Amino acid sequence: MAVRIDLMVSLDGFATTTDQTPEVPFGEDWPRLVGAYMATRTFRERVFKDTSDSGTTGLDDDYARAYFENIGAEIMGAGMFGLHNFPDDPDWRGWWGDEPPFGCPVFVLTHSARPSIEMAGGTTFHFLSATPVEALERATKAANGKDVRVGGGPTVARDFLKAGLVDRLHVAITPILLGRGIRLWDDLRGLEAGYTVTSETAPSGTIHLTFRR
Amino acid sequence: MAVRIDLMVSLDGFATTTDQTPEVPFGEDWPRLVGAYMATRTFRERVFKDTSDSGTTGLDDDYARAYFENIGAEIMGAGMFGLHNFPDDPDWRGWWGDEPPFGCPVFVLTHSARPSIEMAGGTTFHFLSATPVEALERATKAANGKDVRVGGGPTVARDFLKAGLVDRLHVAITPILLGRGIRLWDDLRGLEAGYTVTSETAPSGTIHLTFRR
Repeated sequence: MAVRIDLMVSLDGFATTTDQTPEVPFGEDWPRLVGAYMATRTFRERVFKDTSDSGTTGLDDDYARAYFENIGAEIMGAGMFGLHNFPDDPDWRGWWGDEPPFGCPVFVLTHSARPSIEMAGGTTFHFLSATPVEALERATKAANGKDVRVGGGPTVARDFLKAGLVDRLHVAITPILLGRGIRLWDDLRGLEAGYTVTSETAPSGTIHLTFRR
Repeated sequence: MAVRIDLMVSLDGFATTTDQTPEVPFGEDWPRLVGAYMATRTFRERVFKDTSDSGTTGLDDDYARAYFENIGAEIMGAGMFGLHNFPDDPDWRGWWGDEPPFGCPVFVLTHSARPSIEMAGGTTFHFLSATPVEALERATKAANGKDVRVGGGPTVARDFLKAGLVDRLHVAITPILLGRGIRLWDDLRGLEAGYTVTSETAPSGTIHLTFRR
């Protein structure tokens, strides 16, 4: 059982864009940041339910496949679930669609408790106010021997990294400069000390960096 | 004739360390940031005058060799020359030793004019107060058809990048997190638009990223 994080960042280290507007709800930076991953066959199938085999294969897709493999539970921040967008709607079911791509229990960290939501495809969202250690305990139990993924966003990922709870961190660096957003790498001085770091480059230009304990 | 920049940054984007003390004049972060480059055969020879062939060869050394190839003139900030350390000593000849590794005219950007200094090995330091465009005009003339390198530090490099003056940017990313220093990537949103970006990884773990016009 391993605790894993898998994120995309720009060259200047931004893992979440902050240029969302009502007209462009994900922001114009988002598709450029995650484009290479979203173009893979695995993400086309799992996230967009596109079974036409039109996605890319190769190194990016290898990492995309690994993203979904052997995950027994996921932990994410309220922002990644979408709570920040509709904080006052108790019926809001997140922006991941009727059949979210997780297929496992997902623990959403939030200070405002609400009942769990069971979705199609094996995903159940649970909401809890907890420290990283407490959330990981819950998720580990639910994962039943499989890995736990800390899905994001970057602030949540950083909390788990700083607490020394992460066994494997995969960061896909997209070779663009955003100049704005939320940084992954802040306050992580010396993180590499506990890990072996490797990297390889995909034809898309994406640099895949892996920290392994 | 091309204008080139060649820098090393940490994963979190720091190109210059700021942890210098009187006891550790380069700071403890510096050797870790530039270690892979400094270990190459080319840098051992050119910078440290070590001709024992003890340095590393391979991809890092290929880039180290390219660093010195076909450079006709260099532009650097006052900090890279070392002016900030001894601002009041008119006889201070920089911290690059009696025979600096440049072997060409070097234009040091500073607001306080001082006479040029001729060093051994073909390096002459000129001091000028100039905009990036003006400095580049002077350096281009001096380079006599060869390339001009903007040596650094990151603030000077960024000024030339923002002014659209750079034809080739090579950044060697060291897979460590410093958490402090001066960032290269600030305020460069969209830089990639004018370039083709490629990258490859050396066995040392260094990621070599190149922006080419």
